[in-house]
Amino acid sequence: MRYYEDIDVGETHEFGEYHVTKAEIIEFAEQYDPQPFHTDEAAAEDSAFGELVASGWHTAAMCMRLLVDGPLYNRASMGARGVDELRWKRPVRPGDTLSIRSEVIDKRVSESDPERGYVDSLLEGITQDGDVVISWIGLGMIARRNPPEE
Amino acid sequence: MRYYEDIDVGETHEFGEYHVTKAEIIEFAEQYDPQPFHTDEAAAEDSAFGELVASGWHTAAMCMRLLVDGPLYNRASMGARGVDELRWKRPVRPGDTLSIRSEVIDKRVSESDPERGYVDSLLEGITQDGDVVISWIGLGMIARRNPPEE
Repeated sequence: MRYYEDIDVGETHEFGEYHVTKAEIIEFAEQYDPQPFHTDEAAAEDSAFGELVASGWHTAAMCMRLLVDGPLYNRASMGARGVDELRWKRPVRPGDTLSIRSEVIDKRVSESDPERGYVDSLLEGITQDGDVVISWIGLGMIARRNPPEE
Repeated sequence: MRYYEDIDVGETHEFGEYHVTKAEIIEFAEQYDPQPFHTDEAAAEDSAFGELVASGWHTAAMCMRLLVDGPLYNRASMGARGVDELRWKRPVRPGDTLSIRSEVIDKRVSESDPERGYVDSLLEGITQDGDVVISWIGLGMIARRNPPEE
């Protein structure tokens, strides 16, 4: 298990293959983002996108799955406080295969809770062609291996 | 249909009821965020959360559904560029009922594409008790009703 002390600023990971299907794009969107360009191929052709594309929240969720299976797998994660600067840079389409790239950009111990470390990471979701489709800064929390005695 | 010209800075909307179930929390997390505190009640009790809680991305997705059924319903939406300052302020639990509050905080026409308007909104997801569980600034795009002739 990797704790706060084991994480280095600058460490990078590239991980995963998530195969994006039309069926999953539509299933996610019908539940969570039923805009026509995410749920209906014919309507999508007449939209600003010109084709069926994944909900941006679905793209984020698929990348989260890659993070959980990859860089977060053996981390003593305590969840995340939030996300900064999330950008949908290019739509995700049926047939795309996504991978993720992560880089730790900052870390520090919480001033209010010395058992808790903050780790900020730049995350990018990337297609089989190397195009970045989404990026965000994740504000993660991770347990310390050796917190000070109270 | 509401176009860029029809949106006023300062307009607010409150909308929706999304009933959060344990089954849906686990189903979403098994697909997209299989960390034990989202997928396994017993493991969640031993986690930093102390109980089963929804994936933060699931919380965002449920709020997106409320936005699509509410404030975005009749907007000439062209999707979103991204999200700033997303914060998970409190975990969402089985049995919670979520609603959303939105406020338009800025708008301007794209300098690169005069057919496209940018509308920034502060979004908050709120429980039945009035607790804000998530907030973000959505960077939306919306068609102009009367773009200038080329």
